[in-house]
Amino acid sequence: MYIHAVSHYLPTAVVGNEHFTRLNGLSSDWIIERTGIEERRKAAPGENTNTMTIDAIRRLQPKADLATVDLIVGATYTPYDTIVSLAHEAQHMLGIADIPVVSISTACSSLLNAIEVVEGYFALNKASRALVIVSEHNTAYNNDEDTISGHLWGDGAAALLITKERQSDDDFEIMGLLTGGAAHTPKATTGVTMRPNEGGVAMPFGRDVFINACQYMPKASLQILERCGLTLADVDYVLPHQANLRISRNVMNTLGLPEEKLISNIQRLGNTGCAGCAIALSEQWDTFQKGHRIVITVFGGGYSFGAMLIQK
Amino acid sequence: MYIHAVSHYLPTAVVGNEHFTRLNGLSSDWIIERTGIEERRKAAPGENTNTMTIDAIRRLQPKADLATVDLIVGATYTPYDTIVSLAHEAQHMLGIADIPVVSISTACSSLLNAIEVVEGYFALNKASRALVIVSEHNTAYNNDEDTISGHLWGDGAAALLITKERQSDDDFEIMGLLTGGAAHTPKATTGVTMRPNEGGVAMPFGRDVFINACQYMPKASLQILERCGLTLADVDYVLPHQANLRISRNVMNTLGLPEEKLISNIQRLGNTGCAGCAIALSEQWDTFQKGHRIVITVFGGGYSFGAMLIQK
Repeated sequence: MYIHAVSHYLPTAVVGNEHFTRLNGLSSDWIIERTGIEERRKAAPGENTNTMTIDAIRRLQPKADLATVDLIVGATYTPYDTIVSLAHEAQHMLGIADIPVVSISTACSSLLNAIEVVEGYFALNKASRALVIVSEHNTAYNNDEDTISGHLWGDGAAALLITKERQSDDDFEIMGLLTGGAAHTPKATTGVTMRPNEGGVAMPFGRDVFINACQYMPKASLQILERCGLTLADVDYVLPHQANLRISRNVMNTLGLPEEKLISNIQRLGNTGCAGCAIALSEQWDTFQKGHRIVITVFGGGYSFGAMLIQK
Repeated sequence: MYIHAVSHYLPTAVVGNEHFTRLNGLSSDWIIERTGIEERRKAAPGENTNTMTIDAIRRLQPKADLATVDLIVGATYTPYDTIVSLAHEAQHMLGIADIPVVSISTACSSLLNAIEVVEGYFALNKASRALVIVSEHNTAYNNDEDTISGHLWGDGAAALLITKERQSDDDFEIMGLLTGGAAHTPKATTGVTMRPNEGGVAMPFGRDVFINACQYMPKASLQILERCGLTLADVDYVLPHQANLRISRNVMNTLGLPEEKLISNIQRLGNTGCAGCAIALSEQWDTFQKGHRIVITVFGGGYSFGAMLIQK
């Protein structure tokens, strides 16, 4: 299984920390110290997870033949429409008849769950060229005045073409992939929530989310390396879920890897949910060299986690 | 792949057609003539897709060993929480650590997409005992005063244990399963919508939904029979998505099958979304005899469709 191409879309409006200083009295230094976030993007009126899906696909079209896509998997926890899901919007745009189309959510860890769903369709021989779209419109459900988590969130989307067979020398091979739920832990169902009818996104137990993210991402990373018969010495980069720069640094520290191996965009984009890692992969795509190995590891509310090893 | 057990949960409050007569002036006879619906269930305050998930699982526990479940797939388009999805809620309740957990939506057709995701995990040998939960809280997002579709919706949930190997003589074997998106059709992304931040569920082009449902469900049914080397003469029952009794009758008519072979609960429950077929299967479970073959076929907004042939 290969990642043949990836693209991303970011809304143009930039929201700096001073917005939250004005609203909530949180200083920019305090926000940066606690989260690493300097600014984030905010979707314009009329933009949503479905329009950002279309924008991400438009940017993928020059890089990949999407006319032969035979599976679409979308992911979001900030849906514009739960019936006309972003996967349906993508199919409508591409005009491909009667292929399997599904949207999923495991919160911020959905990118890897979406790719694992693709892996299943490939194993069944029900598909061989899958379009995966991750799109988050956090600001549609966020309360900017929430002093606990209002300043964390940003908007953005990414699209990936995943193929069963190698398409080009530049493809990333997916060497291994695992996902898991950690909802058995005590505060998993209350730590961070997104209830459309009850005020949107909230993080009553941020510390519990932080602790579990810092435990699960290194654990899953080591597990996927072991399954692939590799060690940390074989890893060029780690791309963790972009939730908080302190979590990312904690993950690198636990793994004993230097910060030069950390890929991060949270400083500029905030927490873009399940789109974060895919946006980062898209932003950095041209900088990777043949043979480079990246561990992408995610943790999301609910809780869920995952790790994927890819090699160029 | 087998359906070992199924259970369902229905809220206790019954809403008769007279509620809509009072609100909108629609007579009960008119509603019955147009939809077949005589009454529907409405979740109580405090109930939601996650609580109904727990209630459905409680009813499944006496029928199946859930302690060894190694995959959970939830489905809903009327989520209580998109981060703490109903699959996470189920994992939290069962307390099983680190298994894959994901929630999906392809609107009313999600039951079959969820089972197809399970099929993929089974093919990958990443799971062998999957809990599937379908849960809809339509009344949380419905406008009762909408004279076009306000009277259609009901609440309910179901849970199924799907296993890779046969567990008992009473299991239904899944002989074949297909799903597809039909979002390439012109009104697919506007026919029926569920936008949490824009007034909830609406059906601006109900006639287009009706026409496509009547075309896709028979087509998918014939396709799955052909793939299994069977014909309509081999089918004992058809269980279509419970959207509208006129659609169900139209499907039977197109297939040339008598109404005695139609399984239907929409008269009592309204359109319970992706839960409808699973609730009906649970309600009728004890009436099926060894050798009985059922085609379950679905159509959902977005649009999506699917068909599954099962044999006891």
